[in-house]
Amino acid sequence: MSGGKLLATLAGTRFPTPPIWLMRQAGRYLPEYRAVRATTKSFLEFCYTPEKAVEVTLQPIRRFGLDAAIIFSDILVIPDALGQKVWFETGEGPKLEPLTDPAQFAQLSRARLSDYLAPVYRALTETRKALPEETALLGFAGAPFTLACYMIEGSGSRDFAKVKDWAYRWPDSFSILIDLLVDAIVDHLVNQIDAGADAVQLFDSHAGVLPEEQLFRWSLDPMMRIAQGVRLKHPGVPIIAFPRAVGPAALMYRRPDVFSALSLDTGIGAHWAAKELQPHICVQGNLDPIMLVVGGRAMEDEAKRILDKLGHGPFIFNLGHGVVPQTPPEHVAELVEIVRNWKPGA
Amino acid sequence: MSGGKLLATLAGTRFPTPPIWLMRQAGRYLPEYRAVRATTKSFLEFCYTPEKAVEVTLQPIRRFGLDAAIIFSDILVIPDALGQKVWFETGEGPKLEPLTDPAQFAQLSRARLSDYLAPVYRALTETRKALPEETALLGFAGAPFTLACYMIEGSGSRDFAKVKDWAYRWPDSFSILIDLLVDAIVDHLVNQIDAGADAVQLFDSHAGVLPEEQLFRWSLDPMMRIAQGVRLKHPGVPIIAFPRAVGPAALMYRRPDVFSALSLDTGIGAHWAAKELQPHICVQGNLDPIMLVVGGRAMEDEAKRILDKLGHGPFIFNLGHGVVPQTPPEHVAELVEIVRNWKPGA
Repeated sequence: MSGGKLLATLAGTRFPTPPIWLMRQAGRYLPEYRAVRATTKSFLEFCYTPEKAVEVTLQPIRRFGLDAAIIFSDILVIPDALGQKVWFETGEGPKLEPLTDPAQFAQLSRARLSDYLAPVYRALTETRKALPEETALLGFAGAPFTLACYMIEGSGSRDFAKVKDWAYRWPDSFSILIDLLVDAIVDHLVNQIDAGADAVQLFDSHAGVLPEEQLFRWSLDPMMRIAQGVRLKHPGVPIIAFPRAVGPAALMYRRPDVFSALSLDTGIGAHWAAKELQPHICVQGNLDPIMLVVGGRAMEDEAKRILDKLGHGPFIFNLGHGVVPQTPPEHVAELVEIVRNWKPGA
Repeated sequence: MSGGKLLATLAGTRFPTPPIWLMRQAGRYLPEYRAVRATTKSFLEFCYTPEKAVEVTLQPIRRFGLDAAIIFSDILVIPDALGQKVWFETGEGPKLEPLTDPAQFAQLSRARLSDYLAPVYRALTETRKALPEETALLGFAGAPFTLACYMIEGSGSRDFAKVKDWAYRWPDSFSILIDLLVDAIVDHLVNQIDAGADAVQLFDSHAGVLPEEQLFRWSLDPMMRIAQGVRLKHPGVPIIAFPRAVGPAALMYRRPDVFSALSLDTGIGAHWAAKELQPHICVQGNLDPIMLVVGGRAMEDEAKRILDKLGHGPFIFNLGHGVVPQTPPEHVAELVEIVRNWKPGA
């Protein structure tokens, strides 16, 4: 089977050391990424050029021999494919023509999604062909609530006041958007698996801004429906859930019947995760990306602390958030060595 | 004793309904606040004008009869008093001339802090005189890590990369800054209590960006040292800790020997808090401020859900974060009614 150690771990096999990959491992911290990125002005055009997406997806695998490649793309390809205007301004993050009225939902259509995102699927197929057999290929999507945040706020936000106001004030209207996104995300994940993804990750990056009842309704429930939708077509493909910054509500996502693993942000302590989550479900995480910037003894101590707490159970080593641009690439190589040389109980 | 229901609750007395106050209850959502604010250009000058600070502190008490007033001031008065350049740009939040080198610590001095912040203390004394006997007066300070975030980042931040890099790479140097802040904060809180504050709250607004070992070292440990320092002078004065967004690590702060109450952000579920925190310590919180914007049935349901889960134990009703400017003032009046009319077990 392709996908080696990562897929076997998700299927329940234990190894002396855990598999490792890093969120945003293909990115600006790599000079070879910046070289390819410089050849295209628009970020979305870059995502939609298969040969470039394939190349940058493979770069960290060549350098570091990580256990998984994650296809280079963006969570905002879905609003883009649905017909919302999305663009990226240098140094400012993504911008969207924000939805301000439920009447605008009618203009969003998933009819063309599969055609529109065909370049992403071609990139997956080409990447799978080029990857070593033992390296897993991950597809991904943003979860509905996180996409709705961008679609209603029009950008990142400090307090997510607009999207929360909408969800709390007009839940029936907000449901229509969330349901549309559930269907679009199922399509996108199924297409990615059809194209060669061995597993998929659902990023609910903004879930942490919701209180618990709302979290169930707008984050967990839609993510469970997506998992069910994907499994109708691909029963065996692992789904990793990343409900970021949800705190103790991570307990709600401890659903091994639905998710294959739970990705943890830096704010979930390894000790608590080992006690409360890992006995029920494989966990992934959660080194602070700034530790990867700092490197040296501080990074080693922190990585080993996480390994000592979580390395004995079903575990995938990762960061708690994406690699940041100022990360020295050699620190990634050192981290991979630390994880691969870790001795349980040593 | 002055301070009525809030102080009695912190001392262990139970009432049929909990006391209520709201973080940032004196603020831009009130037209009478905006009228006073408009008379001074600089935000810090506004904070340092006792008659204006007194007036805006009293406004929400007059309108809503809340159980506590919190002195109108800002957490950044401490870096300002220590000699760092701090200013506020309209619509952009605070700015500081950032610390970039440990050598700059030597230029920070707490020698003049008590004189420099005398207007804050005068405002407390005048507010206490003007307040109804049964209304508690709260002083406050930012916790050391949160202040260090502003002092090193120079503003708010998305990933707090600079301050975390410093803390992880040069912990001995970072300790010098944290220790200086511990001493300055003890001075500031003791002065506030001397001037009339009945209780104090410590805001560690950015604690949630730290992983657990770092959280202990840079957030909890300094906050415990501050509590000890304050208690040397004022053994009986309640100290409320607000380690925002720390998730399950809130368990570490469950220290009734050190803190009188734990203030919870919106991300801590009421059910979890009732089970894990409240049996050990009085809790405060945690309605989503956006629910206060929305009002109506959604706000009522959510407030009652929190009351039903937490109203039976030691509890202070509050928000999970500050009141936002777009809040209709009448929703605050409605919330106070909901809390005061709540029937346990109804």
